[in-house]
Amino acid sequence: MTSPLVVFTTDFGLSDPYVGVIKGVALSINPNLRLIDLTHQISPQNVAQGSFLLDFNHRYFPKEAIHVAVVDPGVGTGRRPVFLSTPWGRFVGPDNGLLSGVISDYLDSEPETAGPINLPTGLTAVHLTNPDYWRHPVSHTFHGRDVFTPVAAHLSLGVATKELGESLDNLFYLPVLKPAKNGGTITGQVIYQDTYGNLVTNIPAESLPQLELIEVRIKGRSIVGLSRTFNDDTYATDTGLIALTASHGYLEIALANGSAADMLSAGEGEVVQVGISSG
Amino acid sequence: MTSPLVVFTTDFGLSDPYVGVIKGVALSINPNLRLIDLTHQISPQNVAQGSFLLDFNHRYFPKEAIHVAVVDPGVGTGRRPVFLSTPWGRFVGPDNGLLSGVISDYLDSEPETAGPINLPTGLTAVHLTNPDYWRHPVSHTFHGRDVFTPVAAHLSLGVATKELGESLDNLFYLPVLKPAKNGGTITGQVIYQDTYGNLVTNIPAESLPQLELIEVRIKGRSIVGLSRTFNDDTYATDTGLIALTASHGYLEIALANGSAADMLSAGEGEVVQVGISSG
Amino acid sequence: MTSPLVVFTTDFGLSDPYVGVIKGVALSINPNLRLIDLTHQISPQNVAQGSFLLDFNHRYFPKEAIHVAVVDPGVGTGRRPVFLSTPWGRFVGPDNGLLSGVISDYLDSEPETAGPINLPTGLTAVHLTNPDYWRHPVSHTFHGRDVFTPVAAHLSLGVATKELGESLDNLFYLPVLKPAKNGGTITGQVIYQDTYGNLVTNIPAESLPQLELIEVRIKGRSIVGLSRTFNDDTYATDTGLIALTASHGYLEIALANGSAADMLSAGEGEVVQVGISSG
Repeated sequence: MTSPLVVFTTDFGLSDPYVGVIKGVALSINPNLRLIDLTHQISPQNVAQGSFLLDFNHRYFPKEAIHVAVVDPGVGTGRRPVFLSTPWGRFVGPDNGLLSGVISDYLDSEPETAGPINLPTGLTAVHLTNPDYWRHPVSHTFHGRDVFTPVAAHLSLGVATKELGESLDNLFYLPVLKPAKNGGTITGQVIYQDTYGNLVTNIPAESLPQLELIEVRIKGRSIVGLSRTFNDDTYATDTGLIALTASHGYLEIALANGSAADMLSAGEGEVVQVGISSG
Repeated sequence: MTSPLVVFTTDFGLSDPYVGVIKGVALSINPNLRLIDLTHQISPQNVAQGSFLLDFNHRYFPKEAIHVAVVDPGVGTGRRPVFLSTPWGRFVGPDNGLLSGVISDYLDSEPETAGPINLPTGLTAVHLTNPDYWRHPVSHTFHGRDVFTPVAAHLSLGVATKELGESLDNLFYLPVLKPAKNGGTITGQVIYQDTYGNLVTNIPAESLPQLELIEVRIKGRSIVGLSRTFNDDTYATDTGLIALTASHGYLEIALANGSAADMLSAGEGEVVQVGISSG
Repeated sequence: MTSPLVVFTTDFGLSDPYVGVIKGVALSINPNLRLIDLTHQISPQNVAQGSFLLDFNHRYFPKEAIHVAVVDPGVGTGRRPVFLSTPWGRFVGPDNGLLSGVISDYLDSEPETAGPINLPTGLTAVHLTNPDYWRHPVSHTFHGRDVFTPVAAHLSLGVATKELGESLDNLFYLPVLKPAKNGGTITGQVIYQDTYGNLVTNIPAESLPQLELIEVRIKGRSIVGLSRTFNDDTYATDTGLIALTASHGYLEIALANGSAADMLSAGEGEVVQVGISSG
């Protein structure tokens, strides 16, 4: 029999025992769990980044996976702990917008402002109010350990979702960081900087014009043409900067054998524009 | 059937292949093991910190867990490799004080100086002298790989503890870093700094007076009142510093949306005092 | 029944979700896999270092393990994706020299220049050309996710290797970094610096003369005599520098309670010489 799979996405970092502890808690409830880390390196308390990374990575996991998602600056305050069921994955986490990216896949049109939205068809949610499935005593500051992970472990044992609390018809929505189109120009931003110094933007590959003269602009620099790989220097600038649509399906700015982030002194939030070169 | 669980707590860090290697060694002996990392980020060779973290985290794991604990500056010298069995977890590691925190849970009163102590009732220990359960050749510098992990893997297969070596009635004890009380003042210290820059002390939540006028002092700064969460600024100082009893049950000094460690230029060992505010 | 074991060795680092994603891809194909990280901290795109670490560590894992090895600066260009079967482990990765260390164990003599070599007896290889065992769409930049990991997961399900593509009788070979002997002097180099600042060289323990007067030279400093452990200061220099043959079987330069790398301002590639002391 296959072990149920729980996947963790948090901002806990890797320096502390927190990740080990939540795994201990999970295995204390269901010793047969298979536990995988998607990442614990979300920038601390960056809910929007967590939402983005969870969205574009959760489909690499089996549909049956239970995701524990914790980027939770409001822990211990009024924000609701919630469970969300989708056709591709179940999710446990705070109702602070962290699940917005996942939800956005099922929306016809995206709200422009933050706030509660009605759940799209096919998704269901529960307000986690039944303490029978929590760890006690419940800390004010570590619901990842005392609420979210225990609930996920109990779900893996077959607990019915209606046992977890009251059904919800809305969740808090944080507009997903999406690029804007204005005439021929797409304006987006750097969502995160990877370990190589590549700057990953929120501009999807499929939104880009299929033209040789495509021009990517960042911090006053211009890159004309999209490279096919990190080693493809057909379109490299004098400085070695290239733009490419990397493995994850988003426009990325890279430096062959170097760090684009360092060279440009650019990081999260940096504006990136795509247009047609006049040259 | 549930896979046996082995939990690792070491100072190996995450940059090197050492952690991967000990897992390979474990799975070469028992391919059905479930392997979890509590942490590999104990400050290098900081036995006291390892003892503290192992103590306050091991109960998040099932009682059946086998812990491999390696912070071992004396590897290859005279210190004994040992096995310790407790009602909550079995432990394999060096006899250098690393297991003192776990042992302290079973002591009526704590010795004040370092040295061998008789094992409290309910605990048993073995001097690991039987090379049949080691990996060969045994390195002088890596007993984590060649002694401790192989012994844990063999234990998971059901090897009787008496096969591992001679029974011991004492283990080396390193006094656990405990705060001192003097009149109305508790004097403790920062045990470690977490990845967010929060300063975790050795002062347990339950030892604190339940008073609004409680005052926490560190590096000439004073924080009056305990906050309930990281976002609770009822008692924040002008600078945003707060004191709270965080998830792990110890007094902690934090900075809302920032690093208390950076702001105070404080880290491990920094003195922290708790008293009653005169203001 | 034992879960099949897949071991990852990459330069992906631990900051990004890439490692989590390849595990999700693996478990989507075979949910019963056991997934272990040897390391994801190969220096970015350092194929020679990856080859060295994979060579000296793969035998700590069971012979049945399937290794996914990805240090792949040429991803998306002409280099072949390959499968290699050996008596101790099966390997999936790019044909860029990353598997040379493993192959070298089976060679009578090592080629001196980079280029294709015929496979030694006992090893078999396949050019991975059958897209039925890949993930689609295949990215130009992330074959770890779309080719190597899916192939490993399918292998774990019992897919015959001949189904994966055409049999190969040669693989690209990158000469393994081996020390040179010249008269009584061995000249090697620092292969990598571990997390403690120890400098690990490519000079094997068994090649060293068993003499008290052995002298290790690095950056104008001289260390006479090999220490037995990190705490053994019999042969320590004034500065506390010691040389020892550490757990992995290679000569290493260390500083008791400090970082040899920092003290010497030395790192990967630094020349190390071993001779007989004249003093």
